Amino acid sequence: MERRNFLAKAGVGAAALGLVACGKKEEPKPATAPAASSPAPAATPAPAASGEVIRWRLASSFPKSLDTIYGGAEFMAQRVAEATGGKFQIQVFAGGEIVPGPAVFDAVKDNTVEMAHTASYYFFGKDPTYAFDCAIPFGMNNRQLDAWMRYGNGTKLMNELYGKSNIVPIPCGNTGAQMGGWFRKEVKTVADMHGLKIRIGGFAGEVLSKLGAVPQQIPGGDIYPSLEKGTIDAAEWIGPYDDQKLGFNKVAKYYYYPGWWEGGPQLSVYVNSAKYAELPKEYKAILHMACADAHVDMMAKYDAKNPIALKQLVGSGTQLRQYPKVIMDAAYKAAMELYAETSKANPGFKKVYDDYSKFQADENLWFGIAEGAYSSYMGTKR
Amino acid sequence: MERRNFLAKAGVGAAALGLVACGKKEEPKPATAPAASSPAPAATPAPAASGEVIRWRLASSFPKSLDTIYGGAEFMAQRVAEATGGKFQIQVFAGGEIVPGPAVFDAVKDNTVEMAHTASYYFFGKDPTYAFDCAIPFGMNNRQLDAWMRYGNGTKLMNELYGKSNIVPIPCGNTGAQMGGWFRKEVKTVADMHGLKIRIGGFAGEVLSKLGAVPQQIPGGDIYPSLEKGTIDAAEWIGPYDDQKLGFNKVAKYYYYPGWWEGGPQLSVYVNSAKYAELPKEYKAILHMACADAHVDMMAKYDAKNPIALKQLVGSGTQLRQYPKVIMDAAYKAAMELYAETSKANPGFKKVYDDYSKFQADENLWFGIAEGAYSSYMGTKR
Repeated sequence: MERRNFLAKAGVGAAALGLVACGKKEEPKPATAPAASSPAPAATPAPAASGEVIRWRLASSFPKSLDTIYGGAEFMAQRVAEATGGKFQIQVFAGGEIVPGPAVFDAVKDNTVEMAHTASYYFFGKDPTYAFDCAIPFGMNNRQLDAWMRYGNGTKLMNELYGKSNIVPIPCGNTGAQMGGWFRKEVKTVADMHGLKIRIGGFAGEVLSKLGAVPQQIPGGDIYPSLEKGTIDAAEWIGPYDDQKLGFNKVAKYYYYPGWWEGGPQLSVYVNSAKYAELPKEYKAILHMACADAHVDMMAKYDAKNPIALKQLVGSGTQLRQYPKVIMDAAYKAAMELYAETSKANPGFKKVYDDYSKFQADENLWFGIAEGAYSSYMGTKR
Repeated sequence: MERRNFLAKAGVGAAALGLVACGKKEEPKPATAPAASSPAPAATPAPAASGEVIRWRLASSFPKSLDTIYGGAEFMAQRVAEATGGKFQIQVFAGGEIVPGPAVFDAVKDNTVEMAHTASYYFFGKDPTYAFDCAIPFGMNNRQLDAWMRYGNGTKLMNELYGKSNIVPIPCGNTGAQMGGWFRKEVKTVADMHGLKIRIGGFAGEVLSKLGAVPQQIPGGDIYPSLEKGTIDAAEWIGPYDDQKLGFNKVAKYYYYPGWWEGGPQLSVYVNSAKYAELPKEYKAILHMACADAHVDMMAKYDAKNPIALKQLVGSGTQLRQYPKVIMDAAYKAAMELYAETSKANPGFKKVYDDYSKFQADENLWFGIAEGAYSSYMGTKR
């Protein structure tokens, strides 16, 4: 498909979102009143057996072109409809259709929409603590995060945090460890990062700033021309399947890994807590289960599609490069400094980070044994 | 807890099952008529809204002591009950309570019980092809298997295979990569495996036989005394959390990893296909979603509990050992030979293996990039 047509069709324009956190200064605007083509009746509390149909609207932060991430919300909504015989219907709107991407937080808080599907690091500008529900640099991978959410204090802490804004968070998807971005030139030392204009945001941008790089805030649709013109030197997006669609391989030769700022970013459904409370208890259970099903499904879809795209990219000339250990080490050190600084300034952040990092240390220990040794060995058998 | 009491209470007796496949010669006996204390009315097909309660019985192959694996079925059943307001109730019976462990296959096929929760490599003796729904040596890890099931041909192939016996398979849990067993003495070369009496079964036993080891079929409850007396030299079970309960660390010093024969064993729910067909479509959706929820939950529970147990084991003197590469390589070669031999003799096996191994090769490629590099790096940060 011709690139510009594709971008236009996919709605990856200046108003659309990439998987980059909003910059600190970009305080999300209040959600505007919806102007959807379909009617949006207020959800009526109804017992499951009463026969009344509950209709909710879900504001996704993602364009439809991201069929894996955006598709996760559609998968979930379909499951909910199936399980309720169509009596609980969730209509999914793409990013920007009724609410601008990062504004979904306030839209849910204020009940402009009943729910959203997004990546919580978009709320980094409000409070970096929100990012724990998605990803932080050198954070937990998808399984570790599931363990923290379900058998650590993750769900409790996230419920507390989001509950202050009348939001109930429910995990609903993960991309797995992402790639580390497209570079026009190779980077071999920390000095090579100095002055590097890289499209990246949130915590990752702050970490890279400490290394002397110059993070850029650019919407997904503007990355290609910026890389092409050399306005930026590098850009991160997601992984092979999604990146290939935007054609970055045509304007940047080197594809780095791993995306150490997104080792297992979780997507979540955020529900207005009053609306959640009104749901019959059967529908609450169904909603949670549908999100869990979508959680597995998104990860599976990425894992099935990424290797095929990766082979095609490499076949078309993309050069894979692993981040040099010196750069990883410098970034790790910078991230730890940043967490220490943020913990000092933000007690809420400290509370979650202390719990998260303690849990993560145990997980890293365990994943270095059976899982790690097995994966490493199998990685040699392609 | 005192060990013998524990084993008695846990029902890990001679009749109970460990996570070892039944030997080829152990053809499961026909399931006997149930003698449960509670009544077992035949499930009545009922539309979701009719108000009739559907009651099913689930035969687990696992003892209650395995709260993670056995608990997976209880978690699923509870979710189903919640989502249906108690109108679809699944009663879970532990291994041996109403059906002997490996006999759950025939019990579901013949509708003695509506469903089972088990590990399909227990059916290895009937046909090794069944094992693809759980694990084969050097097979896919949990995420790769999810990808094959949902976005490869896994579900289609497993539906075809189990459908011949009137069984609908639904994934419901995974343990993640297991440990490689408890050894009384270190093994450093392939020669050290020669004559080694190791408690292991199924494909893994056949692979180890090719290396000169002597696989032993021993129920879970008999492993401890056998290791203690030296009747066997080594035994595999599951991972730190489950192994610690059986106290193997007291009678075998060396704890090997990874369990290359169980890189991501999947547990599944198997449903009688006629009973499945009778379910209202809403309940079908709910059953699948509840299994997906349990799927995430079991993995999360293992990942949360294993590191704590591992630290305690190491603290009490257990010596961790990684399988030497020479042994891994010899086992890998033996496994590939075995798959080639089995493919020649068994066209049904060949059909699934060809698809599975092709998919796996792509997965191994992808997992060696972003996910693998990230995990390896984080493994150095404990």
